[in-house]
Amino acid sequence: MAFSSFLPVSSDSPFSINNIPFGVFSTKANSTARVGVAIGTYILDVKALVHAGIFERYCECKFPYDTLSKTTLNEFAALGRTISAATRLFIQHLLLNTTHILRDDIKLRTQSLIEQADATMHLPFAIGDFTDFLNSRTHARNTHSSHETPVNMFNPPRAFPGRASSVLPSGTPIVRPIGHLFDEHGKPFVGPSKELDVEVELAFFVGVPNDRFSRVPITKAEDHIFGVVMLNDWSTRDVQRGEDFPFAAFNAKNFASTISPWVVTLDALEPFRIPPQPRDEGDMLPYLTDPKDSTYDIHIRMDWKIAETGEIFQASRSHLQNAYWTFKQMLTFHTLSGCPMRTGDLVGTGTITGEDSSSYCSLVEMTRNNTRKITTPNGTVRSFVEDGDEVVFTAWCGDEADAGLIGFGECGGLILPSEF
Amino acid sequence: MAFSSFLPVSSDSPFSINNIPFGVFSTKANSTARVGVAIGTYILDVKALVHAGIFERYCECKFPYDTLSKTTLNEFAALGRTISAATRLFIQHLLLNTTHILRDDIKLRTQSLIEQADATMHLPFAIGDFTDFLNSRTHARNTHSSHETPVNMFNPPRAFPGRASSVLPSGTPIVRPIGHLFDEHGKPFVGPSKELDVEVELAFFVGVPNDRFSRVPITKAEDHIFGVVMLNDWSTRDVQRGEDFPFAAFNAKNFASTISPWVVTLDALEPFRIPPQPRDEGDMLPYLTDPKDSTYDIHIRMDWKIAETGEIFQASRSHLQNAYWTFKQMLTFHTLSGCPMRTGDLVGTGTITGEDSSSYCSLVEMTRNNTRKITTPNGTVRSFVEDGDEVVFTAWCGDEADAGLIGFGECGGLILPSEF
Repeated sequence: MAFSSFLPVSSDSPFSINNIPFGVFSTKANSTARVGVAIGTYILDVKALVHAGIFERYCECKFPYDTLSKTTLNEFAALGRTISAATRLFIQHLLLNTTHILRDDIKLRTQSLIEQADATMHLPFAIGDFTDFLNSRTHARNTHSSHETPVNMFNPPRAFPGRASSVLPSGTPIVRPIGHLFDEHGKPFVGPSKELDVEVELAFFVGVPNDRFSRVPITKAEDHIFGVVMLNDWSTRDVQRGEDFPFAAFNAKNFASTISPWVVTLDALEPFRIPPQPRDEGDMLPYLTDPKDSTYDIHIRMDWKIAETGEIFQASRSHLQNAYWTFKQMLTFHTLSGCPMRTGDLVGTGTITGEDSSSYCSLVEMTRNNTRKITTPNGTVRSFVEDGDEVVFTAWCGDEADAGLIGFGECGGLILPSEF
Repeated sequence: MAFSSFLPVSSDSPFSINNIPFGVFSTKANSTARVGVAIGTYILDVKALVHAGIFERYCECKFPYDTLSKTTLNEFAALGRTISAATRLFIQHLLLNTTHILRDDIKLRTQSLIEQADATMHLPFAIGDFTDFLNSRTHARNTHSSHETPVNMFNPPRAFPGRASSVLPSGTPIVRPIGHLFDEHGKPFVGPSKELDVEVELAFFVGVPNDRFSRVPITKAEDHIFGVVMLNDWSTRDVQRGEDFPFAAFNAKNFASTISPWVVTLDALEPFRIPPQPRDEGDMLPYLTDPKDSTYDIHIRMDWKIAETGEIFQASRSHLQNAYWTFKQMLTFHTLSGCPMRTGDLVGTGTITGEDSSSYCSLVEMTRNNTRKITTPNGTVRSFVEDGDEVVFTAWCGDEADAGLIGFGECGGLILPSEF
């Protein structure tokens, strides 16, 4: 069934009526951050709908509608999957070309429809904690193979805490970080990183929290997940080299991680369930064994704009299936210890590098740990991102040419020179 | 000059009039969390003072007093050191035996003085991010010496992100965590951790934040620090063993970290400045070189109560001077990358194990990585903490026998059996 909206939605828009991702935005006219959904080139101002009494009058799902009038999605997402699914469905109903409520109300349309180009996107959630997983066999081999110990990178699953204050919405420029570095003689000095890298990832937001010392079983994990965004976990590899032992990247990652601002709900992703990649039976302990084992058919691409020529080229193309663990398994593992996950917690896949080098999801991999150069189609030679370069991820479900596309928008950032 | 209060304060109280630590509490009669300070066995309800107009009438420091009427210290601490110092001084003035304002106002005393025994302590801050440092040469050698690579653990400084949701106030029982473990044949299984450990630490709370991509120079670092607490970074060593490579402890630490609820301000610590331990000149890069290099004379002790006998014994005694980096250096290093620190961020020293084995600050060290037993004075044999055991840290400044003691109260937790 192809739904269609009374609003014009181009066939290549990531935000078809089948999607309805949630975000938080503000405008020049109204600088208060508020909840909206994306439809075509528009934002539907959900707070405005609540204030106009549209939920009260027409939405037969009784929940505290003022959770949609907040400056973040936290209170709404905490209500759970049943409520968020019903809300998405009601908004789809409002946007249908057969529904008169919004279509025929010029005043309400003026109040509640904003061009995305006129809005500023904010972080969709107040993020309590940010975790990033290790999920790619190839990435692990590419970046950690020098270690002598033979270890199974997936038994137990590996994850590390990120820094919540570092997460920012797409479009925020990235100032090249300073770092504690070492010269060729091993002498330490401080200066701008020369190896500023990207990490192509997807990530999910926790909706329903779990109590401290309780665990989320694999069969319940999806009830706790609100939706999915793209994530660029910017990393300075030269800084990281000094930090990797005995812990892991610290200042090499704590300055910025960019996410796409529109959260695609698990309900929107439902039609795109596919089997996960084969896993080693020995890794599948009972608590990680999922009777409904599945991931999603999500493609992701990295485009790189070269500062001096303006050339834009596709630097990487990958897929969520390159993640060893499913979102469900990541959440279940995360709470095995009784770790309390709160609404708005962000959990990244880690780079989802695949076997093929075209799917390498970081520059340290593409350059084979800075031993090879990257040559763009137009002949520019690069190792890492340079000042003035811009990196933009896009992601979408299923076949790119599909009508009714479910996409993730953009996750991008421009590199600004260091202020050292 | 020995100040003295009209309230009875015993000479061994950690909360003399010279201290005035800030915290957040609630009572049975009023379950709203609110700001208070500790004095002797009392809490002075600062919100009640604000509501009674005491600040408006008598405090000549004009700042938004309603920041003291919140459920956390965040808004107040964000005002900066000048305001928090002035507020502490005003409260000392109110408590002096020569000041009539509170002393002679029976109604105000009834409204604003609560016995600590009648209160529940909460987390003092909404914690945005939690970081833990590596600060002990001995701890690093004790726990990471098996690695082959010769590395300087302090160049660069090492730190790792913790989990903000895991932090809880003293007195919260700790349910023994479950983990992804391995049997003696290397076969993975899930079960309760058998190596539940403590880490004796101190930690500071950030007051004034810094902007993303800005750095806090060493000469300004103290302006950004509100105060200090004790920290027990509970760890499951058997779980950690599987997680340590290529990252670090994850589920082994994300279930609970206990802090003492009273935040001792840097102003209260001012009389206890001492030189830090000698550092290697090669580690002291210009950005870490402090023209006023100093740490504080803070002692810390771990008492261990044995479940089956009720015996309580001192298991460890250490000192902040065992930390290689000062608080100032920790903050300056943390922001070198431009990492944004927010008000309420918690930064731990890591275990402050000293050279002498009596100062070992974790059981994995006391047991030499579980190869020796710990025998209590009464003859109980332990390796790690057992169900029903209780661990309590206390910390104080200067000589324990000093009058006008500036102490930190307690940082304790009782172990409950796993709910597996």
